[in-house]
Amino acid sequence: MESIKSHSYEVHLEELAEAALRQHIAKSNYSKVFVLVDENTKKKCLPIFKEKLGERADVILEIQSGENHKNIATCSKVWELLSHHNGDRKSLLLNLGGGVLTDLGGFVASTFKRGIDFINIPTTLLSMVDASIGGKTGVDLGSLKNQIGVINQPQMVLVFPEFLKTLETRQLKSGYSEMLKHGLIMDADYWKGLKEKNEFTDALCIKKSIAIKNDVVIQDPTELGLRKILNFGHTLGHAIESYCLENPERETLLHGEAIAIGMILESYLSHELKGLSKLSVQEVKETFLKHFGRVSFDTADIKAILKLLKYDKKNSHGDVNFVLLQEIGTALTDIKVPHDLFNKAFAYYAE
Amino acid sequence: MESIKSHSYEVHLEELAEAALRQHIAKSNYSKVFVLVDENTKKKCLPIFKEKLGERADVILEIQSGENHKNIATCSKVWELLSHHNGDRKSLLLNLGGGVLTDLGGFVASTFKRGIDFINIPTTLLSMVDASIGGKTGVDLGSLKNQIGVINQPQMVLVFPEFLKTLETRQLKSGYSEMLKHGLIMDADYWKGLKEKNEFTDALCIKKSIAIKNDVVIQDPTELGLRKILNFGHTLGHAIESYCLENPERETLLHGEAIAIGMILESYLSHELKGLSKLSVQEVKETFLKHFGRVSFDTADIKAILKLLKYDKKNSHGDVNFVLLQEIGTALTDIKVPHDLFNKAFAYYAE
Repeated sequence: MESIKSHSYEVHLEELAEAALRQHIAKSNYSKVFVLVDENTKKKCLPIFKEKLGERADVILEIQSGENHKNIATCSKVWELLSHHNGDRKSLLLNLGGGVLTDLGGFVASTFKRGIDFINIPTTLLSMVDASIGGKTGVDLGSLKNQIGVINQPQMVLVFPEFLKTLETRQLKSGYSEMLKHGLIMDADYWKGLKEKNEFTDALCIKKSIAIKNDVVIQDPTELGLRKILNFGHTLGHAIESYCLENPERETLLHGEAIAIGMILESYLSHELKGLSKLSVQEVKETFLKHFGRVSFDTADIKAILKLLKYDKKNSHGDVNFVLLQEIGTALTDIKVPHDLFNKAFAYYAE
Repeated sequence: MESIKSHSYEVHLEELAEAALRQHIAKSNYSKVFVLVDENTKKKCLPIFKEKLGERADVILEIQSGENHKNIATCSKVWELLSHHNGDRKSLLLNLGGGVLTDLGGFVASTFKRGIDFINIPTTLLSMVDASIGGKTGVDLGSLKNQIGVINQPQMVLVFPEFLKTLETRQLKSGYSEMLKHGLIMDADYWKGLKEKNEFTDALCIKKSIAIKNDVVIQDPTELGLRKILNFGHTLGHAIESYCLENPERETLLHGEAIAIGMILESYLSHELKGLSKLSVQEVKETFLKHFGRVSFDTADIKAILKLLKYDKKNSHGDVNFVLLQEIGTALTDIKVPHDLFNKAFAYYAE
């Protein structure tokens, strides 16, 4: 499938990805090629990937999977391993994994000896259509997501849809949630077609989602304006995700599951503040509830979630900024929301 | 004194620095202004600085001074404090301190919420003429110096020579060592005049050294070529500094003291490999020994120091790259040195 050009790197899919990787390594004179994996991708993806790569995987570095390991302690471990294995400025880091791994691996590479090259090879649907595209790297600080990081582009992103065969449906749906978001913020037709799907690994849809994210990021790499629209559903979604992660009594939500709730809540806010039609809000709610079910939040939960809002990276001067929809396919940024609407939004979600 | 223009920021000296800072803060609409200090600059420099700044120091953040605190643990503490005090993307961090503090503060700012603005206000001679200029930020990984970091420019650098009054002579000499390096690598006349000085706080000399470093950095911000010349004396100097820091039986050397030794050693290598005259090597050795005295290294010390060389950031593909002098005022980069010359260089230093 044809490649997608970005600012300084390219996204290659399927058979072209393999050729691009081999070519890049052949021409780049790297001193060492490191591959970062977790216990899952080591078992399920690394054998397949090594065949694609040919002979050139000098050192495999392993971290533990999961958002609770996406922190500075894990970075320190990888920095030390790179150093121990004589990584130098001409080393290359290949990040083979989901969003946690590509976010963390990108940050480690961007900061090791003030920056070495890295390539993202996303193995989950979520990271194919979202995390691995756009140059955001980073780790969490306690329960606060992605508080520490830099914006830095990989050399390339390689998408092999065959890795999706290794995933459970719950994981696939988490990526599907971000793909639906791409439709909601930029392309009503894409939303319309995608929301009726019952399998989520269609290569054409993956490509469409990557193209939408890439278009936005190219126009605004450092999130001064347009790029903010990608945060639709994420302001409340991140707070919900953090809350469930740090609360031992709650089941941990996958990223896509949390932002699915966020998108329902923020569509309600869009209706109240920006004229998104009642019908559209219903459509958003029904679509996400159909695929993700409903999660219960009591008054104490909601209070704690709203408290986490103030740490959102998108804020400045103490205000909480939202991305809202004017209509399906059109997003507005930097909207302030009166506090009393939050409880109403949660009530709408629950009803 | 007239300001020095850099790529994306300016270096302001003396009275202009105060005006530039006030103006920048007035026009920038920062949500919060943080000042990072250590226990020394808090006591000796912060009161003076607050007067210059006027009213706008919202939160003072304190770290412990010293190279042994220049690590990720200290970064985590500062990231957490920034987060605790509701730092957001529109916050500003003012780094008030020596090289350890501006390197660490620059890294913390560059990575907090994927990057907030920072301004360096160096309080030591070393950081005025070296560390605060050029956008290198970072911290140590164990005993390996500056292994973790990014290249990112501050909004501006403000130089107030009056802070030098708070320093001991040993500290001043550490900066003087870097100033002498600027002469050795770029300007023979500057070297000639500077090496005869007995006081080290001359504002014109400080300005000359900043201008030399800045010229080099502007031409090559990411150290692909010319910028490497700034590493003269640093390849062996860093290894010596690391060795003394991690070895409890050795007295810790200041950075300038370590690279003074490094410059003598590397001048000897320059004579052996690149034709630097015997007379010039003698001149370099006498100058540094006059100001810094001689440090003893036995065979075991030298062996351990050479082992540390392989972790130098400037290496690639397992070779150790050196900057050597062709003559005083002219440096050459990427020179490989045969291993047997290292012992000869140490012998020359000791004789």
